[in-house]
Amino acid sequence: MKIVKVDAAGIRDFKEKWKKRQLISKEILKKVLNIIFDVQERGDEALKDYTLRFDQLDLNITGMEISQDEVEKAYTESKEFIPILETVAQRIAFFHKHGLPQNWFFTDDYGNILGQRITPIEYLGVYCPGGKAAYPSTVLMNTIPAQVAGVKEIIMCVPTPKGEISKLVLAAAKIAGVNKIFRLGGAQAIAAMAYGTETIPKVDFICGPGNIYVAAAKKLVFGEVGIDMVAGPSEIAIIADGIVSPDRVAADLLSQAEHDEMAGVFLITSSENYAHSVLKEIKKQLSSLTRKAIASEAMERQGYIFIVPDLNTAAQVVNTIAPEHLELLIAEPFSFLDKVKHSGAIFLGQHAVEALGDYIAGPNHTLPTGGTARFSSVLSSEHFLKRSSILFISREGLLALGPKAIKFAQAEGLTAHAISVKKRLEESKD
Amino acid sequence: MKIVKVDAAGIRDFKEKWKKRQLISKEILKKVLNIIFDVQERGDEALKDYTLRFDQLDLNITGMEISQDEVEKAYTESKEFIPILETVAQRIAFFHKHGLPQNWFFTDDYGNILGQRITPIEYLGVYCPGGKAAYPSTVLMNTIPAQVAGVKEIIMCVPTPKGEISKLVLAAAKIAGVNKIFRLGGAQAIAAMAYGTETIPKVDFICGPGNIYVAAAKKLVFGEVGIDMVAGPSEIAIIADGIVSPDRVAADLLSQAEHDEMAGVFLITSSENYAHSVLKEIKKQLSSLTRKAIASEAMERQGYIFIVPDLNTAAQVVNTIAPEHLELLIAEPFSFLDKVKHSGAIFLGQHAVEALGDYIAGPNHTLPTGGTARFSSVLSSEHFLKRSSILFISREGLLALGPKAIKFAQAEGLTAHAISVKKRLEESKD
Repeated sequence: MKIVKVDAAGIRDFKEKWKKRQLISKEILKKVLNIIFDVQERGDEALKDYTLRFDQLDLNITGMEISQDEVEKAYTESKEFIPILETVAQRIAFFHKHGLPQNWFFTDDYGNILGQRITPIEYLGVYCPGGKAAYPSTVLMNTIPAQVAGVKEIIMCVPTPKGEISKLVLAAAKIAGVNKIFRLGGAQAIAAMAYGTETIPKVDFICGPGNIYVAAAKKLVFGEVGIDMVAGPSEIAIIADGIVSPDRVAADLLSQAEHDEMAGVFLITSSENYAHSVLKEIKKQLSSLTRKAIASEAMERQGYIFIVPDLNTAAQVVNTIAPEHLELLIAEPFSFLDKVKHSGAIFLGQHAVEALGDYIAGPNHTLPTGGTARFSSVLSSEHFLKRSSILFISREGLLALGPKAIKFAQAEGLTAHAISVKKRLEESKD
Repeated sequence: MKIVKVDAAGIRDFKEKWKKRQLISKEILKKVLNIIFDVQERGDEALKDYTLRFDQLDLNITGMEISQDEVEKAYTESKEFIPILETVAQRIAFFHKHGLPQNWFFTDDYGNILGQRITPIEYLGVYCPGGKAAYPSTVLMNTIPAQVAGVKEIIMCVPTPKGEISKLVLAAAKIAGVNKIFRLGGAQAIAAMAYGTETIPKVDFICGPGNIYVAAAKKLVFGEVGIDMVAGPSEIAIIADGIVSPDRVAADLLSQAEHDEMAGVFLITSSENYAHSVLKEIKKQLSSLTRKAIASEAMERQGYIFIVPDLNTAAQVVNTIAPEHLELLIAEPFSFLDKVKHSGAIFLGQHAVEALGDYIAGPNHTLPTGGTARFSSVLSSEHFLKRSSILFISREGLLALGPKAIKFAQAEGLTAHAISVKKRLEESKD
């Protein structure tokens, strides 16, 4: 971990480096573009070719869809874990039912009724990473909010390298009410769900995390389908002033570092002594971690301790990072909240360890990474709902607004627009 | 216009054709990818090269930014039109202030405080098409909702082919409080705003319509910045049962057709006689239109009349199209509303001519096209706001949920996650 004493130059340098962290290279984008167009053209055949090449799996033998029997079997074999999955599913559903957007209408001075109407998307495709990084929590976090929103049908793609599949992932899919599951991964899975093939139904919206090829594919199909976000490596920022002991802060930082060699890990504190104690603890704890190699590399590459003079400067650092997760391990976290402009999820107080949010608190763990919290939101049921405008125009409204609309259309050279209003005005005077 | 008698096969054929209408080709995507990376690498120099090539404009002579003096001059020279621009700006602002998402919090059974917090994005880039298709309404529709949301700074790019710029566009930008305006268009303008150059500040979010290169560029920078939508050709669907005379319906259809040779124009009716009357009127009115050539081609290419047996079938057709605009020229439009699953903006009743929505009613005219209303929303202030999760965890909450989170983390093989919770549990027992 690098210790940075914060001044304007330090922040600027960091900002430049941070900004570039998760850009996808031109080479990857072009490679993925070819895969996407290949899947569009060749459909199932392309999916079989890529799955054989990347996952060493022959879909002609296994079939593309995972059968209901296989799902049932996985569920039965996960019996001990089912109650936890169900508790988590319930807590996610309970949280996501709050604050759902509602239809609204108002009547203006002319008696026009204007408003907004909310409807759910119909077909959702969830991507779930496979192999060793197969997480049942991902399945629940990406599907339950869609069920709350009223999505009609959910399909899921999960790569099964050499046929390997996590039973807990299948069990979670059953609990979440996923309708169909396919043995597909990578950019080809995203393309299949975006455009549809003989076997894979076209969906309206795709969500779920994945590697850089999946991220590139989601970016490239965006617009033809909706997308939750283009996710990059995970990150955490912690502001700590000493209310939590250094070994706990070290553990929180490491829990993020174990995700990914490219994970970002940031400690922001006013005390150099405290910073050094945390560093010492990190070294100590690292040695016993299962995922020591990954965590060490992340700490080395994207680990920073910022020494700040005060909490205002801490807020500046946070807003520069726009971190996915932010822990406020400070005496008065609620009064600090207003200073935070950009962060995906904010954990307040000494008991709010990030891993509770990752699994069980209720809020979503699918969060904007790499500074994208500047413009994007935590995954929620809103992602699966869309807004339409409603315009009932009264006779009085037409008479009052029509002439102005005609002038505007004429100024823009759209004469047919002007004529359409004129004709309606005539009618209303009939 | 093609007349289609609706049966299952007719709908299926139409659906296939419609689905493919606005896909962007691989060639265009690759071309635009090169422009984007060139702008990333060479910054202002690349912008100058492309502007010379595509707009025949030497930015070394004109400067990249349009000066405040030039804006003031355009505003003064637009004096007669200012009151209309201001009325429109006020109506847009008034509409968009309704239904803004609010922060919310609740306390669960353990005393955890969970919720969602809303904050605005800071830097917005608006793209405004230039030359002959320069629309002041576009400027107002894309900036006012952002001002309502509390965006800090708005820049705008508008191409000025051979130096040509619409005074009304500049006047609208002044009224909307745009902070800076640049003489830039095409994919290069989108890339400049997404990544920043020496002169163009990097923004967090880009909105506004454009040609296919602009649409491709928005798709390709999505994820590094937020994007309103990838817009394609405009379209209208009208369900008419005779309450409005054929010449009015014809005028409404033509007002959409004059936008773009690729515009989609759909009439859905149960009466073949009515359909033929509308067709006759279209031919009659076409001859006198300023944009006759464009409107004719659109009608020829993407003009359809669907003859349906009843309103339920009409709804099926609408939901297959998922049209940008939908006019319900039927006796009881409000009771029909529930059958409409996907449409960007719905116009109800005999006076609700689409052009009123394009200009002055208040709701936004930036709407999802080409069937993307299946998953995306009319532009609104929500696009410029983002949601963060809030998690305050109580001591009781940690004790109740912590052990389950540990089990979950262990099941996923994320042992550092488990350790972080364990350490906090120990602390809470101290």
